[in-house]
Formats: sequence, structure tokens, C-alpha cells
Amino acid sequence: MKNAELHVISTGKQEPQKLAEIVGQIHPYIDAIHIREKAKTANEIYEMVNLLTDHNVPLSKIIINDRVDVAIVSKVAGVQLAYHSLPVDIVKKQFTSLRVGCSVHSIDEGQTAQELGADYVIFGHVFPTQSKPGLVSKGLNQLELLAHHVSIPVVAIGGIKSTNIRGVIDAGAQGIAVMSGVLEAENPLSAVKEYYQNLST
Amino acid sequence: MKNAELHVISTGKQEPQKLAEIVGQIHPYIDAIHIREKAKTANEIYEMVNLLTDHNVPLSKIIINDRVDVAIVSKVAGVQLAYHSLPVDIVKKQFTSLRVGCSVHSIDEGQTAQELGADYVIFGHVFPTQSKPGLVSKGLNQLELLAHHVSIPVVAIGGIKSTNIRGVIDAGAQGIAVMSGVLEAENPLSAVKEYYQNLST
Repeated sequence: MKNAELHVISTGKQEPQKLAEIVGQIHPYIDAIHIREKAKTANEIYEMVNLLTDHNVPLSKIIINDRVDVAIVSKVAGVQLAYHSLPVDIVKKQFTSLRVGCSVHSIDEGQTAQELGADYVIFGHVFPTQSKPGLVSKGLNQLELLAHHVSIPVVAIGGIKSTNIRGVIDAGAQGIAVMSGVLEAENPLSAVKEYYQNLST
Repeated sequence: MKNAELHVISTGKQEPQKLAEIVGQIHPYIDAIHIREKAKTANEIYEMVNLLTDHNVPLSKIIINDRVDVAIVSKVAGVQLAYHSLPVDIVKKQFTSLRVGCSVHSIDEGQTAQELGADYVIFGHVFPTQSKPGLVSKGLNQLELLAHHVSIPVVAIGGIKSTNIRGVIDAGAQGIAVMSGVLEAENPLSAVKEYYQNLST
């Protein structure tokens, strides 16, 4: 059986050089690194991809948030779209080779993403997380409901640690996404290996 | 002889519906409407293009600032790139049918844009303008120098009015770009006609 996927998402706060060094170390243990840098320009994101490939990160593991144009010219594997991005169906139709993920926060949004042709969804936040202070988390029940209502893979995000991974997978998630849990860990390589092992068992 | 081009650039402050109504009226007199809405998301810009075409603005006259992806999926004529955008040569290579303009502020930048394959440059601001308070304008001499140093068309921007158009064209500009001079005019249609007539004579 294929392991559940492990996605790592950039925090938007790390220096590009620092991020590239970390991802250069951890990429063998992850399925995707998402460049999610909302405050950065197209040129800066383009240069970040170059920096990642300089650190031997394969293009097949790089996903860019929102900027479809940067994804296309950089020849990375995919884009991650949100409600404020270009419509999923329009992107899939124009750029057929691109893997397109959708960030969703409800079962309705998940079903719509699937109907429009999304290859997978990221759903969250499942548990309380420091990156979403004050917002009520969805919990495992909502995750399980979503996983039952869509046939595309559901990647869970939000407060996922090695101690609660099993519940997330049992709820039907086919992957998890982590930000600070890896990128801001004291030892990102140890942290990613721990996630990796917990996803394999 | 072909008239000098007239570009109108959105202000970033007008309601999409208001902009679409104005451009729906004035498009027969202009060569390009630039959607330059830096605070708007990809989805909002995409919807603005739809709104413009609903008002019978031809796609062949629509240019989108920075967001190459929105330009491609919307099938508009071109993109306008700045230093923070994707590199011109990368965009031209990937999207061969797109007309690519570059915003430049010096002769060096203009020459680089030409070398990288830009189809034209917008240079400014030529005269003092309310949209660039406190910045020293380039003046007609710099415009003339640039026009001598590049072979691609130079479109001049910044404080251009019917009273100073002649000097701009005589300096070698092959077009002018206007923001508030048309879009915030009491009567945009009259304003654009006045520019149009001054460019024709």
C-alpha cells in the first residue's frame, strides 16, 4: 500500500536561502514542497524555485501557491489554488499537465473542487494551530465526512503531529500537510523523518 | 502614417463595474486598456476581464499587469511586466503569442527589455503627475534619448495632457499611456476623444 503523502508548506516567514537549505535536506522524505509566499512577487517566487533546484530539490516535488504563471514557466509539478485564485476548471483546461490542488474548508467546497477537476484537496485546519489563532478547527469528524464525500485525495492540514497522525489517516486522509512542524523544528530533518515513519506504519 | 497608440491604464481605485462602463464607451478610441490592479486577486482580475468583455471591449485591446496566468486563460492580447514580474524572456519563450510590454524608468532598463524580447516599453513618468508625488519626472530629454537607443516602440506615461502631447510625439514616443486623465475625467468619452484627436494630427 502506498504511504500517505507528506506535504510541507513554506511559512512565508523564512529567508529563501534558509528554506532552500532545509528542503534540500528533507526532500527525499516528502512528496511535495509548497511555495506559499503571499507577500512575494512573481519574480521572487521564480527565484525561489531556482534556489530550490540549486539545492537538488526535484521539480516534480515543487508546488506553487496561486501563481499558475510561475508554476508553468518554472515547470514545477503543480499549483495550489484558493478561492481567490483562478478557477480550477479554467486552469486545468488551459494547462493540462499541471497537478492542481485546491484549499478547501468545508464539504461543499471539497465537492465543488472535485467537480471542477481538482486533483486533490487540502482540508483544514483539522486541529488547533498557531497559524490560525482564534479560528475553530474542523476536527476529525469533518475530515472523515469530507473523505467520504469526495473520491479525490484529501490532504489534511493544521496542527498535525506525530501523536495525532494515526487518527488523521484513520479518518480517511490520504496525506498530511505540515508547515512549522517541520520548517521551524529545531532539527527539520529529524522532524520530517518522524512524520515520514508515522505515515509508513 | 499610423497614429501613435493610446493606452489607458486602470487606476486601481475604481469599482470594476464603473471601469467596465467607462471602457465599454471609450474602447473604439484606444489601442489598449491595461488592467493594473495590484491589490486585486487573480480571481478578481479574471472577473474584471469578463466584465470588460460583457461591455464589448475586445480581448485584443486588453492588457493585464503582471499576472501572466490571468492573461493566458483570459486570452487577452498581452501583459505588462515590471521588475518584480516574471522575466520578459521567460514569458516570451513560454507564451509566444502574448504581446509583452515592459515598464522601464531608464535607458538601461529600456535596452535590457529590448534585448530580452519585449515588444514595447512604457517609459515614465515623463511629466510630474499626481500618481507619483515627490518623484522627479524624467522629462522629454530622457524620453528622446530612450527612443533613440531602442528600436521597439516607446509608450510615454506620466502627466500627459492634450497640451503636451505634441512634444511627447516629437521626442520619439510611438504612443502615450493615460490613467486619471481619462478614467477620472468628468466626461471620459470627451477626454479620450481629445487625446485621440491630438494623436491623429
